[in-house]
Amino acid sequence: MTASTPAPPSSLEIATAATLRPISEVAADLGIEEAHLEHYGAGVAKIDLKALDVGRAPGGRAKYVVVTAVTPTPLGEGKTTTCVGLAQGLVQRGAKAVVTLRQPSMGPTFGIKGGAAGGGYSQVVPMERVNLHLTGDFHAVTAAHNLLAAMVDNDLHHGSAVGLDPRSVTWRRVMDVNDRSLRNVVVGLGARMDGVPRETGFDITAASEVMVILTLSTSLRDMRERLGRIVVGSTWTGEPVTAEQLGAAGAMAVILKDALKPNLLQTLEGGAALVHCGPFGNIATGTSSVIADRIALAHADIVVTEAGFGADMGAERFFDVKCRADGLTPDLAVVVTTVRAMKAHSGRYDIRPGKDLPPTMLEENPGDVTAGLPNLKAHIGIVQRFGVTPVVAINAFPEDHASEHEVIRHLCERLGVRCAVTRHVAEGGAGAGELAEVVMESLQDGSAFKFLYDLSVPLVEKIETIATQVYGADGIDLSPAAAKGLADFERLGFGRLPVVIAKTHLSISSDPKLKGAPTGWRMPVREVRASVGAGYVYAICGDMRTMPGLPKHPNAGRIDLDADGNVVGLF
Amino acid sequence: MTASTPAPPSSLEIATAATLRPISEVAADLGIEEAHLEHYGAGVAKIDLKALDVGRAPGGRAKYVVVTAVTPTPLGEGKTTTCVGLAQGLVQRGAKAVVTLRQPSMGPTFGIKGGAAGGGYSQVVPMERVNLHLTGDFHAVTAAHNLLAAMVDNDLHHGSAVGLDPRSVTWRRVMDVNDRSLRNVVVGLGARMDGVPRETGFDITAASEVMVILTLSTSLRDMRERLGRIVVGSTWTGEPVTAEQLGAAGAMAVILKDALKPNLLQTLEGGAALVHCGPFGNIATGTSSVIADRIALAHADIVVTEAGFGADMGAERFFDVKCRADGLTPDLAVVVTTVRAMKAHSGRYDIRPGKDLPPTMLEENPGDVTAGLPNLKAHIGIVQRFGVTPVVAINAFPEDHASEHEVIRHLCERLGVRCAVTRHVAEGGAGAGELAEVVMESLQDGSAFKFLYDLSVPLVEKIETIATQVYGADGIDLSPAAAKGLADFERLGFGRLPVVIAKTHLSISSDPKLKGAPTGWRMPVREVRASVGAGYVYAICGDMRTMPGLPKHPNAGRIDLDADGNVVGLF
Repeated sequence: MTASTPAPPSSLEIATAATLRPISEVAADLGIEEAHLEHYGAGVAKIDLKALDVGRAPGGRAKYVVVTAVTPTPLGEGKTTTCVGLAQGLVQRGAKAVVTLRQPSMGPTFGIKGGAAGGGYSQVVPMERVNLHLTGDFHAVTAAHNLLAAMVDNDLHHGSAVGLDPRSVTWRRVMDVNDRSLRNVVVGLGARMDGVPRETGFDITAASEVMVILTLSTSLRDMRERLGRIVVGSTWTGEPVTAEQLGAAGAMAVILKDALKPNLLQTLEGGAALVHCGPFGNIATGTSSVIADRIALAHADIVVTEAGFGADMGAERFFDVKCRADGLTPDLAVVVTTVRAMKAHSGRYDIRPGKDLPPTMLEENPGDVTAGLPNLKAHIGIVQRFGVTPVVAINAFPEDHASEHEVIRHLCERLGVRCAVTRHVAEGGAGAGELAEVVMESLQDGSAFKFLYDLSVPLVEKIETIATQVYGADGIDLSPAAAKGLADFERLGFGRLPVVIAKTHLSISSDPKLKGAPTGWRMPVREVRASVGAGYVYAICGDMRTMPGLPKHPNAGRIDLDADGNVVGLF
Repeated sequence: MTASTPAPPSSLEIATAATLRPISEVAADLGIEEAHLEHYGAGVAKIDLKALDVGRAPGGRAKYVVVTAVTPTPLGEGKTTTCVGLAQGLVQRGAKAVVTLRQPSMGPTFGIKGGAAGGGYSQVVPMERVNLHLTGDFHAVTAAHNLLAAMVDNDLHHGSAVGLDPRSVTWRRVMDVNDRSLRNVVVGLGARMDGVPRETGFDITAASEVMVILTLSTSLRDMRERLGRIVVGSTWTGEPVTAEQLGAAGAMAVILKDALKPNLLQTLEGGAALVHCGPFGNIATGTSSVIADRIALAHADIVVTEAGFGADMGAERFFDVKCRADGLTPDLAVVVTTVRAMKAHSGRYDIRPGKDLPPTMLEENPGDVTAGLPNLKAHIGIVQRFGVTPVVAINAFPEDHASEHEVIRHLCERLGVRCAVTRHVAEGGAGAGELAEVVMESLQDGSAFKFLYDLSVPLVEKIETIATQVYGADGIDLSPAAAKGLADFERLGFGRLPVVIAKTHLSISSDPKLKGAPTGWRMPVREVRASVGAGYVYAICGDMRTMPGLPKHPNAGRIDLDADGNVVGLF
């Protein structure tokens, strides 16, 4: 495999040509019985939560592998394809392996370019379902979120029985669409019977706190309680007002009760793939659901899951927030890297979203790769700080050169970290053979997982710990508003929550322009917010866009049905 | 059965106690093969459109029965229960009968009171699914509608390639929630990159033109073409701008392609029930889908379907718009009436939505029933004007008195119209025995269905024809805006479309306060709009609310999950 390898068929062609196994058979391989399946069209089933109560005993659980990455270029480094390819490779080697993934948002499919179910010969199918409604879980999140919003405004309209201060309302509305016009709106206009005018806005559904609640809940009851704890604003005297007080949480739970059941699909090679939930990676956890992983851990021998963006973002939250939500213990972290990411971290190229890579980046240049290695080294260090064994996966592209892979392997050898080149996009599970073997070998090592911080330390200390020990900052600078916010949260009893840092994913630092492994910088915290239902406080460092826009020529214009009713242009 | 009959168990208790047949068996009874089913959870399946191509030959089609009603009280007269009960009664008598119904909106479930899948022993189950997401069709309509809205605002944001005048945009957004605060909003606030500020608003999803398109489409291709014809506004020179021009129609069709497949459920007695689409009854067609009826007609011997509100509203649109969309020919119309509706039309009682009936209305009073009969007579006349045989169904309530039923029977005898008392709510199909027999007998009569007007007459003449010949008006009064609008529509080539009159459903006239069969009035037409994709022009006569609000104490506050995860308070 060198630069002369012919390009594989398109992901769409591969997905369309795939023959699906009956999903009941895929479930049966895992020991999930038909009675625990609810079919949702061909090739897709929801798994009843009763499947949690069967399977292996809690003690003898499966190995839990998280796939993370270096700081990505705007093109992404292939974490999802690596998850799928690795699971396929493990199954080929006789392991009972399952991959658990986030469900992609439908909105962005119609924006720049669709397709978020892997790619090439490492995809989850039916691809079209994954990229559209799937089983309607996102729609359920939208409906539950907006019911609460309607009840907030209805409370204000009827004179607020709970004493809600309209200026304090932080609960916005959501929609799974890229619609910049909805970022800032005024509602309640018209006549007296048309509500109370006030300024608010819409986020994309993936940014909803309800999505995170669905992701982190361990049971229907846990979900119901979390929904009740959602804080929508405060009273005129500054006390938090919750969804429970507004009487909305029960109805929200009813809307979401089926959405809590994970969706079973399959890889191109017929192995089980659970696709469930899709919280934002920048302001939320960026992980798939706790429930899906628990069901997978109860039935498989190895569970491969994904955490969004680089290890500074997704893996840190995976460890400190998701694993904390249910006492899950990760055994191993795969750190995905690419030659192009390392070259990008040399700082010698100008790479922009939506643009082609500079052609000079495709030339053989191990020197540039070497210059970018500090970024990989930093991400390996982040994983190790949690006591988790790292394995580096070099996701090979046809344009790569052997000398460029060599310098990455060399770094890993020096660090005593196992490394494998993987060609799963071009070759499926067979292409991930080396990686699967290295993962199986590393899983023998055992793990000494530990959280980065104890929940009992003050919120400000948690933020500082992440900034300095994970991101490599010299310290943090709190704005006066952030400092006051943290003090308020401590006073209101939210001090024992974990913390999520909402920062750019394009740098380990909070400045997207800093490549490699930046040092000598301080992290500014502009604002803090509490997602009490989801169960964390988040600190905003930089501009976080929670509602994307459409480009001048949206992908929607290329998506259509052909004469036979087949979807074209989706991928 | 008299006023002393004990009250039956609640609809929720009955629905919960029901044992469902496997849905594949229900389909098999109709001759729908397993290969044409897509299961969506237990007891629900979508029917592939390929089922249209099998079944009986187009010539030898089934009998087609529409269930309509007198002008309803705000409590409704039991059209849906009569549909279900009649179908159950027909099945009990050995007929291969199917009921096709609209899907209720989820939003209002959380408002005043949930439950719109029939009631008592004449329900469609699983009831909980019908009243929540079902298979996500409404969510798909919401997503497709709002994608177009995003593309409208995106076009404006990027300088409008199509020359769209922002002040002309009539395409609003939709959400399936009761949220008065969204009726009038300003979008596009914020900074330069956050869109173009303009005033707009949200309707409930049932009021979306996309919902009507889904309802009236005869194939995927027809739906795709209708979506392309949607007019969202006009250019600065007054030419219409379509979804096709904005490049949105293909993506909308992709979002909707599964939603076009009807949903198969079952009656409490295990017969087939197709539940599909739910367009508003006041500004839209208020009928279930053409596709569901076509599939039912291809497989059953008798198809019972519902049209919204009284015969002036739903039946007229059923005949002139829905049947016209696909050359469907109705054989018979069941006109549902109740003792309480006739008493209400005496004009002697003050009945209000959300309030209990005046207790004096429950006393034996055949004189009041007689005073209300002109309303029933008018609705019978409306059906007959279309050449369709009417059958009057007296939906009996426990509080009714035999003398009160007698005066209704008497009127029918005088008019030469068949009549039956039905007790399907209390007794299921057995209670609809008399009605089923009368319907089977009447179906032997044959039918001479004709449209009310020819499509070639001018729009203004169509409006006049409906107003005078169906509603009994002396004539119409067009506002200057309406007159100009109609002239514009003729000029733009929309003159051959049928017409829907958006008026109150609480009177045959356009004034909700006029009971009985009002005469000596003129119908004021305030405004006209064109739903070009759906394929009709609509004339607005009165205030039409297209986004409901929540009451002070919404039903959502009573809906929850119990300790076992079961839904409570939904019905």
